[in-house]
Amino acid sequence: MSSKANKVNKALDEAIPLQEPIKLHESMRYSLLAGGKRVRPILCLAACALVGGDEANAIPIACAIEMIHTMSLTHDDLPCMDNDDLRRGQPTNHKVFGEKTTILASGALLTLAFELVASKLTDVSPDRVLRVIVELGSTIGSKGLVAGQIADLSSEGKEISLDELEYIHVHKTSKLLEAAIVCGAIIGGGDEIEVEKLRKYGRCIGLLFQVVDDILDVTKSSDELGKTAGKDLVSDKATYPRLMGLEKAKDMATEFLDKAMEELSHFDAARAAPLLHLAEYIAYRQN
Amino acid sequence: MSSKANKVNKALDEAIPLQEPIKLHESMRYSLLAGGKRVRPILCLAACALVGGDEANAIPIACAIEMIHTMSLTHDDLPCMDNDDLRRGQPTNHKVFGEKTTILASGALLTLAFELVASKLTDVSPDRVLRVIVELGSTIGSKGLVAGQIADLSSEGKEISLDELEYIHVHKTSKLLEAAIVCGAIIGGGDEIEVEKLRKYGRCIGLLFQVVDDILDVTKSSDELGKTAGKDLVSDKATYPRLMGLEKAKDMATEFLDKAMEELSHFDAARAAPLLHLAEYIAYRQN
Repeated sequence: MSSKANKVNKALDEAIPLQEPIKLHESMRYSLLAGGKRVRPILCLAACALVGGDEANAIPIACAIEMIHTMSLTHDDLPCMDNDDLRRGQPTNHKVFGEKTTILASGALLTLAFELVASKLTDVSPDRVLRVIVELGSTIGSKGLVAGQIADLSSEGKEISLDELEYIHVHKTSKLLEAAIVCGAIIGGGDEIEVEKLRKYGRCIGLLFQVVDDILDVTKSSDELGKTAGKDLVSDKATYPRLMGLEKAKDMATEFLDKAMEELSHFDAARAAPLLHLAEYIAYRQN
Repeated sequence: MSSKANKVNKALDEAIPLQEPIKLHESMRYSLLAGGKRVRPILCLAACALVGGDEANAIPIACAIEMIHTMSLTHDDLPCMDNDDLRRGQPTNHKVFGEKTTILASGALLTLAFELVASKLTDVSPDRVLRVIVELGSTIGSKGLVAGQIADLSSEGKEISLDELEYIHVHKTSKLLEAAIVCGAIIGGGDEIEVEKLRKYGRCIGLLFQVVDDILDVTKSSDELGKTAGKDLVSDKATYPRLMGLEKAKDMATEFLDKAMEELSHFDAARAAPLLHLAEYIAYRQN
């Protein structure tokens, strides 16, 4: 896993050289290269390899997805959104570069994500590249990630139902994880059945990821997490443990893990092993 | 011209139906459908037709470019940027919908622009569609539109040189006009020579557009312009008339117009007529 993450980190570093305008590119690099587990890029590479594709072809997509993820975080942290001062233990982007640079850098990251995919995949059929762009667009647009952010922001301080919570998580978190896997499979040359199986796997992984996040927030200390623990409770934010109880949330995580594994049974066991391990990693991670 | 603008307006209206999340889509539609001369879309359609393409194929690109243009305006108006309350005589997006919705809606418009181009051009070779996406990406990313916005914001209240002013205008205004024309020509099936001629035409038109904007700001009343006249002077903003004098700015406009016309001489005169008239329209417009 760490060798894949290193490949992605190297590609991300190269995708944004430090050039004029310096402050803008520093702002883009600051949040993008600030670490993080690179779960989405690794899932993308693994899905590409599972359907028999060359992992190298998935690198630009893996980078694009990480850029999109980063952009969504820098937006979330803005004063008019969650107004966060810290992210991954570091001052947030707008704290370092100022709000206007952060907003413009976020737009530039989003743009670069599409540009990378459109320009770097010269070995892949352009039809598949366009499918990836459409998939990314619908994942992050006004019926995807952005819809989740809007719902999340308007739910603050309100009692929301489990359905509403799921809407937020599916749109804000799950869809991008799903897209990472689906786009990897498309670019790897997967057929319709493979792509659909992996889409279902991705959906389970996405929900699993969020339930585990919620569980960790209430069961771990800030030191263990590397971020403020109990933040959701303090901010009165709806979470799975809060709406259904910790034990039921844990059962739900197990269910999503089982379902994800089931979708993988369609594939050759040896080749599916990396995605199987990633599912387990997401389920059993401690931070 | 107005029939082309109507076609674009209809396509823009259809591209963003009023759906859930309602407030988000209202915010996207509010600024996108608020009028405007649709200069960029019309240039795009005309360039497509000039190289022998079917104008219908350029409609999604024309819409994408108008979405990008709108996104750049709603960003520019934000409290942390120019902090404008009015745009085209109406309250700015964040005044109506709040800052966070505006920021998210702007991101959604940018995303939709790429998604439209990637999904709606099924009659065009996918290679050309990808070229358009790369062109749009480099036009609006960290070395394009966003670079111009950063430079513009950091120039406020400072004395800047003519070179710096040109950098801002080229990046903030001119490149998108150029891209509208270049992308129209690519999607219309233009060969390399045609695309390059139209790129040069586009560059002249872009600069012409901005010089004329600067001239109108100091020579017309607010009523005539439909926006606050003399705003650049009051805000101490660098403009061509301010840096070189009104007469020299007018000479410069004439030069750009002549150069633009010259690039068109490569093409059949009858077919080039619409782009020729558009150049004159941009040069001689009164608001």
